[in-house]
Amino acid sequence: MSEPEIAELTRLVREFSTERDWQQFHDPKSVILALVGEVGELAELFQWVPAHEAVERFSSPDRHERVAEEMADVLVYLVCLADVLGVDLGEAARAKLAASHERFAADQVRGVAPHKP
Amino acid sequence: MSEPEIAELTRLVREFSTERDWQQFHDPKSVILALVGEVGELAELFQWVPAHEAVERFSSPDRHERVAEEMADVLVYLVCLADVLGVDLGEAARAKLAASHERFAADQVRGVAPHKP
Amino acid sequence: MSEPEIAELTRLVREFSTERDWQQFHDPKSVILALVGEVGELAELFQWVPAHEAVERFSSPDRHERVAEEMADVLVYLVCLADVLGVDLGEAARAKLAASHERFAADQVRGVAPHKP
Amino acid sequence: MSEPEIAELTRLVREFSTERDWQQFHDPKSVILALVGEVGELAELFQWVPAHEAVERFSSPDRHERVAEEMADVLVYLVCLADVLGVDLGEAARAKLAASHERFAADQVRGVAPHKP
Repeated sequence: MSEPEIAELTRLVREFSTERDWQQFHDPKSVILALVGEVGELAELFQWVPAHEAVERFSSPDRHERVAEEMADVLVYLVCLADVLGVDLGEAARAKLAASHERFAADQVRGVAPHKP
Repeated sequence: MSEPEIAELTRLVREFSTERDWQQFHDPKSVILALVGEVGELAELFQWVPAHEAVERFSSPDRHERVAEEMADVLVYLVCLADVLGVDLGEAARAKLAASHERFAADQVRGVAPHKP
Repeated sequence: MSEPEIAELTRLVREFSTERDWQQFHDPKSVILALVGEVGELAELFQWVPAHEAVERFSSPDRHERVAEEMADVLVYLVCLADVLGVDLGEAARAKLAASHERFAADQVRGVAPHKP
Repeated sequence: MSEPEIAELTRLVREFSTERDWQQFHDPKSVILALVGEVGELAELFQWVPAHEAVERFSSPDRHERVAEEMADVLVYLVCLADVLGVDLGEAARAKLAASHERFAADQVRGVAPHKP
């Protein structure tokens, strides 16, 4: 029976923090600022790339790895924040998506078309 | 044999997009802006809360659910971006954490103490 | 002799905080989170708009006003943070731009072309 | 008669872009991503600093200059975005603060106390 993936990441993030004795720094506001820092690095990778070239540009192995690393950093801090706050991140995301799906189905019945933007 | 958790979320996010015909909007830069929007909503929940009260403040059921929802939104857009870019998010996070762990172990051997900030 | 513009905004932001007795909340980390919240709202306005339509889309009076308000909020928290930290924001921006200009001129002499991305 | 400060910054930012031929990159979504990148760098400076030490920590000359530079970068991209969108940033901020002040005065008359958070 394998460990659920987000639980595994949570365990790894917690080990990372405890081996360095960094839990003391991980109050929610600080972790959110760290998350913001990582989202900023992700944004920087894409800022000047023309929108329609972005997928292709990041398909080269080195760029693909670079963006994967930045996204990993975002996920790590999100998992860290969830751990600090006692949030079940996977469950929350599944619940959110299920609720959106039901709302969408109900809108379909009423003939309401979802549109962006 | 159960579906890995992030693969499941990816499937759900993709269903969400296809049933609305929204994949057309999901170029990387747009999804990053959506991620930024959700991180902003998360930040707003905590901005004026004293740092040392933040965990307790968000332990009441309604606030706990509110923050879980905002975190779910962040995860959903991160999963969406990973899908668009072909990034294996769970693998990337595990690799990042494993690399950090090895670096830490090497630093320990050399007597280098990790410190924040 | 008129008051410099950023000094005026700083004075107005300070009046805004003092009349509500909100300086107590304005430690740097909290103000940065508030700034992040406003940047998130700005990002949300543009997230699903095709890049090449963005300028035109926000030229209609109501949308123009909406985006101006969100940008004003970002500036207000940036000015607030500068006030809390004793940073002369206008001077810092002028110095940064002057330094970039000199670097550019030196690169030109050496035949280095600046390029993005 | 001196040039208003934000108009001056706008002129300098525009010169910066034109001398490098970078206006082509400055569509609103791209500039917002750049703004997000700079806000991320600002957040990183403060993320692990205890909230009550943040002001003092950034009062040493080198740290003060570092944070001033990051804030300058945020302002530069905000001014750039305003220029691209034809937004009068100073006027928008003054209008926002004046409206807040009037709302506050009206609330006072009605005995409504403003409170955060």
